[in-house]
Amino acid sequence: MNNGILYGVSLGPGHPDLMTRRAWELLQSDKLWSYPIRNAKSESYALDIVLRAGLSLPQQHAPLIFPMTHDVEKLARYWLRAAETVMVSLYTGQDVLFLVEGDASTYSTFGHLARTVKSLDETIEIDTVAGVPSFNAAAARLNIPLADVDDTVAILPAGYGLDVISNRLANFDTLILLKVKPLLDDIIDLIAERGVLSHSVFIEKAGSPEERVVRDVASLKGEKVNYLSLLLIKNPHRQRGAIIRGCRQKSALK
Amino acid sequence: MNNGILYGVSLGPGHPDLMTRRAWELLQSDKLWSYPIRNAKSESYALDIVLRAGLSLPQQHAPLIFPMTHDVEKLARYWLRAAETVMVSLYTGQDVLFLVEGDASTYSTFGHLARTVKSLDETIEIDTVAGVPSFNAAAARLNIPLADVDDTVAILPAGYGLDVISNRLANFDTLILLKVKPLLDDIIDLIAERGVLSHSVFIEKAGSPEERVVRDVASLKGEKVNYLSLLLIKNPHRQRGAIIRGCRQKSALK
Repeated sequence: MNNGILYGVSLGPGHPDLMTRRAWELLQSDKLWSYPIRNAKSESYALDIVLRAGLSLPQQHAPLIFPMTHDVEKLARYWLRAAETVMVSLYTGQDVLFLVEGDASTYSTFGHLARTVKSLDETIEIDTVAGVPSFNAAAARLNIPLADVDDTVAILPAGYGLDVISNRLANFDTLILLKVKPLLDDIIDLIAERGVLSHSVFIEKAGSPEERVVRDVASLKGEKVNYLSLLLIKNPHRQRGAIIRGCRQKSALK
Repeated sequence: MNNGILYGVSLGPGHPDLMTRRAWELLQSDKLWSYPIRNAKSESYALDIVLRAGLSLPQQHAPLIFPMTHDVEKLARYWLRAAETVMVSLYTGQDVLFLVEGDASTYSTFGHLARTVKSLDETIEIDTVAGVPSFNAAAARLNIPLADVDDTVAILPAGYGLDVISNRLANFDTLILLKVKPLLDDIIDLIAERGVLSHSVFIEKAGSPEERVVRDVASLKGEKVNYLSLLLIKNPHRQRGAIIRGCRQKSALK
């Protein structure tokens, strides 16, 4: 008997209609559902997307705990437990869906699960189903391009601090700043100083039903924002170098 | 009578099942289809995705020319013509779908169309439907994370040259290098020198039926690759600064 396949099923940012047709089809099939939760008592945002799409939790399902911690040993212990849980089913030939919000390759718990399963048994087949990332949903919501021709984009957790943010801002056309909560006031000062305040938008829970968009970013000063919030900053002042096009132009590099 | 709505309908990277349910639903509705072509004789890749999904081109449809050029005046002329074409229908109250591959906010012709329409009549309603970008499809195909916890990602057209690529490589965990064709040999030398050759993957036409994945990137030296190709480079050697977490830690910034 063959082992089951582990599917990373991206569900998109939250609106059930931003799920792909492939994810939708997999959810109709007779496969075990697994999904991440933060602790034994918490709800799963990924599962919630599917339930809001009108589907019912099948008999066969497994919540897997991915704790919110940076304790490396604790994380490894939970990843191992999650991997072992799905492998029990995979070894009986049962396919397992792992439900994730957004895109399974982008800041997702699926990476940890897939890596741990592979480290225990490299013969297990993994199938990642791509989905719509929350950034793209945010840009769509605002009807602004994340990237235009020849644009450069940086995605950066704000926690690296103001010096790093300042440098990236100078060097990219679009900056997607994640987890801005702890530094928001200082970031607002920085982008005001750089003249890009009016080119910045704050988005909380992008693409979800509780999405909140604030275009007057300066109005957020002093406010305690949600942890799941990002800043989308366009920098029309970026100094661009020449771009090398078409066929190889070796001389241009010297 | 109300004007019609202009929809930017992201179709995902090429496999019809990576379309969102929302895109699929809009395609079933009685709206005019428009789609980009490079010149009067060329085919539309976006339309091809929809046809491969089993749908038929409706009577009401409009190919719009977006030429492959960097001639700013020529581009503006074609954008204006495309905008005027869809506006004829919008002004009769007819909704118009503009079909685009990948995600409509990411290096897409939809940005030009939407901007031009808005510049002619800011009362026209635009609705961008987010989709799966080709990068995410590429990462899914390879079962590797584009970004893990605290990772930074840069998306960069390779044409900015080796110095820029070299700098971004040092400062990001993941580098998505677009349009690598003209500089591929030099880029291969650079990533070999930096010890990240084995962490790099070359992908041509990511997410499309003609997708080609080359893990032995060095084997491409001297080869003339497709224009629609990218390199996905992970840099496990990146020197990370400390990251500021949780609540505001002002002192950590000084």
